Amino acid sequence: MRELGEFALIDRINSGRLQTPGVLLGPGDDAALVAAPDGRFVVTTDMLVQDRHFRLDWSSPQDIGRKAIAQNAADVVAMGAVPSAFVVALGCPADTPLNVIDGLADGMWTEAARAGASIAGGDLVRSRDIVISVTAFGDLRGRAAITRAGARVGDTVAVAGRLGWSAAGLAILTADAESDDFAEALAAHRVPQPPYAAVLNALSGTAVAETPDSTVADADGNTTHQRPSSTGASDPGDIGLNALTDVSDGLLADLGHIATSSEVAIDLDSAALRDKALDRIAARMDADATQWILTGGEDHAFVGTWSAGYPLPAGWVPIGRVSAGHGVTVDGAARPGSAGWESFGGVDSAVAGEPR
Amino acid sequence: MRELGEFALIDRINSGRLQTPGVLLGPGDDAALVAAPDGRFVVTTDMLVQDRHFRLDWSSPQDIGRKAIAQNAADVVAMGAVPSAFVVALGCPADTPLNVIDGLADGMWTEAARAGASIAGGDLVRSRDIVISVTAFGDLRGRAAITRAGARVGDTVAVAGRLGWSAAGLAILTADAESDDFAEALAAHRVPQPPYAAVLNALSGTAVAETPDSTVADADGNTTHQRPSSTGASDPGDIGLNALTDVSDGLLADLGHIATSSEVAIDLDSAALRDKALDRIAARMDADATQWILTGGEDHAFVGTWSAGYPLPAGWVPIGRVSAGHGVTVDGAARPGSAGWESFGGVDSAVAGEPR
Repeated sequence: MRELGEFALIDRINSGRLQTPGVLLGPGDDAALVAAPDGRFVVTTDMLVQDRHFRLDWSSPQDIGRKAIAQNAADVVAMGAVPSAFVVALGCPADTPLNVIDGLADGMWTEAARAGASIAGGDLVRSRDIVISVTAFGDLRGRAAITRAGARVGDTVAVAGRLGWSAAGLAILTADAESDDFAEALAAHRVPQPPYAAVLNALSGTAVAETPDSTVADADGNTTHQRPSSTGASDPGDIGLNALTDVSDGLLADLGHIATSSEVAIDLDSAALRDKALDRIAARMDADATQWILTGGEDHAFVGTWSAGYPLPAGWVPIGRVSAGHGVTVDGAARPGSAGWESFGGVDSAVAGEPR
Repeated sequence: MRELGEFALIDRINSGRLQTPGVLLGPGDDAALVAAPDGRFVVTTDMLVQDRHFRLDWSSPQDIGRKAIAQNAADVVAMGAVPSAFVVALGCPADTPLNVIDGLADGMWTEAARAGASIAGGDLVRSRDIVISVTAFGDLRGRAAITRAGARVGDTVAVAGRLGWSAAGLAILTADAESDDFAEALAAHRVPQPPYAAVLNALSGTAVAETPDSTVADADGNTTHQRPSSTGASDPGDIGLNALTDVSDGLLADLGHIATSSEVAIDLDSAALRDKALDRIAARMDADATQWILTGGEDHAFVGTWSAGYPLPAGWVPIGRVSAGHGVTVDGAARPGSAGWESFGGVDSAVAGEPR
């Protein structure tokens, strides 16, 4: 890598990549240019650090690249937005093998394509550890953003995607208990598979015919100058999806964010959360599948609260209910112990425990 | 920092910050929401690594925060866009003192305000070294992007901002020759001051009255559906600014990018580049001011090529000419040696030489 130099390496990474049409100007200039037909764009950023968020002896570079994009794309979709582009800043030691760089880039492009977008640009620098910083963009297609603050008393809590499988894979890797029997859990940890389509297909019929800053006339012919609606507070959409997030810190922690932001209580039904395949793995690992499901992060399932009168779309499973009050309970009882991932202090579920 | 925990620390960093109106939804949800009235947005990302791009014994946390934002804002402005928002991913060791975090955040907010924007969101993770990854956004206000590919034979090459001062400051720090006499150069290295206004004021009269995907009629009444123009290739704007970049890798290297992209040659006039104040510093440091000016990066001056018939706006100084051919020369001669900064291989002007 040292021999190739920064510019040649960037050329190598970008060689043969096809930008999606929303990327109007890709890598090679001072900045990229991305379409924002909605007149607004959703943006989120996540940093992944070697031996803290991933390990090269546990995951292939391709897997790590996919995971880095997936967790950012999940945040975009969790706002109700369609992924439009990514940018990536990558820090690497000078002696990083070229196949690691190539693998990271290939994985990123693979997952970006799965999310329907491409990588519009980036930065490449030298660092002691591999550091991957992804920023992801999305377009709301004229809809209101779906925040964590929109849950209403009486809503059904439902999930799309798997819970606890990434935590199971992590437990297997930590115990050095890899085997073919555990292939599914290991894959789930290495490459989360956020079910983007479960959200986006449900929303795709709900675009509001609105252009940014458009002038509209009311019934009396008076015109008003409209700004794009700024948050999801006002418009739950046709499908009754009032609040939405992705499960990145753990189900209890992420629903805790919804409960706090929405000023409601959430109760989960443990029976609805049971996963017999996960129970079998937990039994062999002498672990508790319920703990994985409730506190394991990184699966990037989507969890939302839905108005009671609306049918749940394909891919969504009811797991609880929103009521008046505060906090998150399971079968009516508070759950002791860990409530998920924090980067500093508190319970630490880092891949490598307490690194260095 | 460890005691406080991730979420409390993020609250602390964001406490009391005022978002600019273009940030429709700030920190606290899965993603932020930023206005893009143009229907497109410019995006760039840069990663800064401790002891490679900055040193805590050479710069204050405030200075480092300002520099991180400034170099990204400069890339946005170098496309002809108005900064609209930033997001920041920050990696820190668990034992990082709180005043370092606070200083970094304060510096970032200070420079974001200077660029006319705010910090819409971010991420905070643990890492071995401090790593700052900034992504910056800008709005083109209906204008075409000004790329590196638009230079035309006969254009005047002109610069806005200082050249070589950051390199002088680096040389002083490297030689451990700090003194009050060198305060200006030291400040220039610690906090680059890209002259955003020199570009943006010049452009502010040139907005094209165009809405994204608008339908327009030609003289015969035929309508066509227009996409936003995607690059700067088609529209130099009223002011005759055909190509633009910021000086981040060194003047020769950055003009080399323009020459290559535009398929032209560029010749610089060494007399126009002379800076007597820098000459005085160079004499005392037994160094070559011309080398600093031609190859020193990080000043984030703006350099552009202007149609010959147009007067240069305030703040711009002519330094050379575009002609047919290729490559960059000074007084008609090729310049031997270093052509600027590369992250891997080649000449390495890292703040700390070859780190670890």
